[in-house]
Amino acid sequence: MRFYVGLVHFPVYNKHQETIASAITPLDIHDFARLSKTYGIKGFFVITPLEDQQVLANRILRHWISGYGAQYNRHRKEALSLVSVTSSLNMAIEKVREREGDTALIVATDAAMQENRAMSYEALRGLVLSDEPVFLLFGTAWGLHEDVLQQADHVLDPISGRSGYNHLSVRTAAAIILDRLAGR
Amino acid sequence: MRFYVGLVHFPVYNKHQETIASAITPLDIHDFARLSKTYGIKGFFVITPLEDQQVLANRILRHWISGYGAQYNRHRKEALSLVSVTSSLNMAIEKVREREGDTALIVATDAAMQENRAMSYEALRGLVLSDEPVFLLFGTAWGLHEDVLQQADHVLDPISGRSGYNHLSVRTAAAIILDRLAGR
Repeated sequence: MRFYVGLVHFPVYNKHQETIASAITPLDIHDFARLSKTYGIKGFFVITPLEDQQVLANRILRHWISGYGAQYNRHRKEALSLVSVTSSLNMAIEKVREREGDTALIVATDAAMQENRAMSYEALRGLVLSDEPVFLLFGTAWGLHEDVLQQADHVLDPISGRSGYNHLSVRTAAAIILDRLAGR
Repeated sequence: MRFYVGLVHFPVYNKHQETIASAITPLDIHDFARLSKTYGIKGFFVITPLEDQQVLANRILRHWISGYGAQYNRHRKEALSLVSVTSSLNMAIEKVREREGDTALIVATDAAMQENRAMSYEALRGLVLSDEPVFLLFGTAWGLHEDVLQQADHVLDPISGRSGYNHLSVRTAAAIILDRLAGR
């Protein structure tokens, strides 16, 4: 697999559909890193333009990769070694391109169905498992900004449970989606 | 479906394989409640014998069900209305029995394969979707105590990703497992 994941903190929406840069949730970095390690993801990008948030994220990574945390819990080190902090989505896309020597398919996730460029789990799973480079984007706060959905090549179908209720946390949504796309 | 979920805070193991009662993680209550609502779970039990932790959990529930949070985010209210705080696993089992008029199949989850009483996702999904009463247990901290595994009728197969790495957070593991058992 040549499969990458990005957690976007800007541009995303707040509760009032305003464009914001969200704060980093340290626990999300851990959960996404552990999921990435579990499902064979090659790299996980934490994307934020806010310098203090980049510093915070890098401090967490240092603690677990080379600081005290590395001895305390080596499993965490393995997972967090997959994380890169980048200041923009375009920079993350460029890093994936450099690493793969190829342009990755950009796929956004959203809680709503995007009729135009919707992609099914089955179709994306096929691409992922046939080693196409794929960069899958998740939005924090109230979700990815329309500009990101537009920039993406496709938007993955929303998760449908059994109740029509569609308000999962981004970390649990990512868990379900990565299992559907890359689980055995 | 007659499907229930429990998050066990005692008895569980700590990092040193000692038996402990773990502290409640408020975020886990939210994530499990939202997952439960998404996947049509009838009730989610937060199981802890520690009275201060019961008080904390009930304070969170009140805030979101009848306090300020209920107006702030009605989706959260819908999800958290599924949560009950109980002081022991046996009490939770009894509440499920009272509600269903029938004894539920108790299925534990564990990060390791339990050869004796292992149950596959396919087998358990079949039971869940045929409306058998099922009570699925997740352990906090370093996992469910051996006594709970023994008390359960079955132990669900561990999640296998692609890498042999098997160190997910309980909330992301629950997301994957509920999607496998009750997702469409």
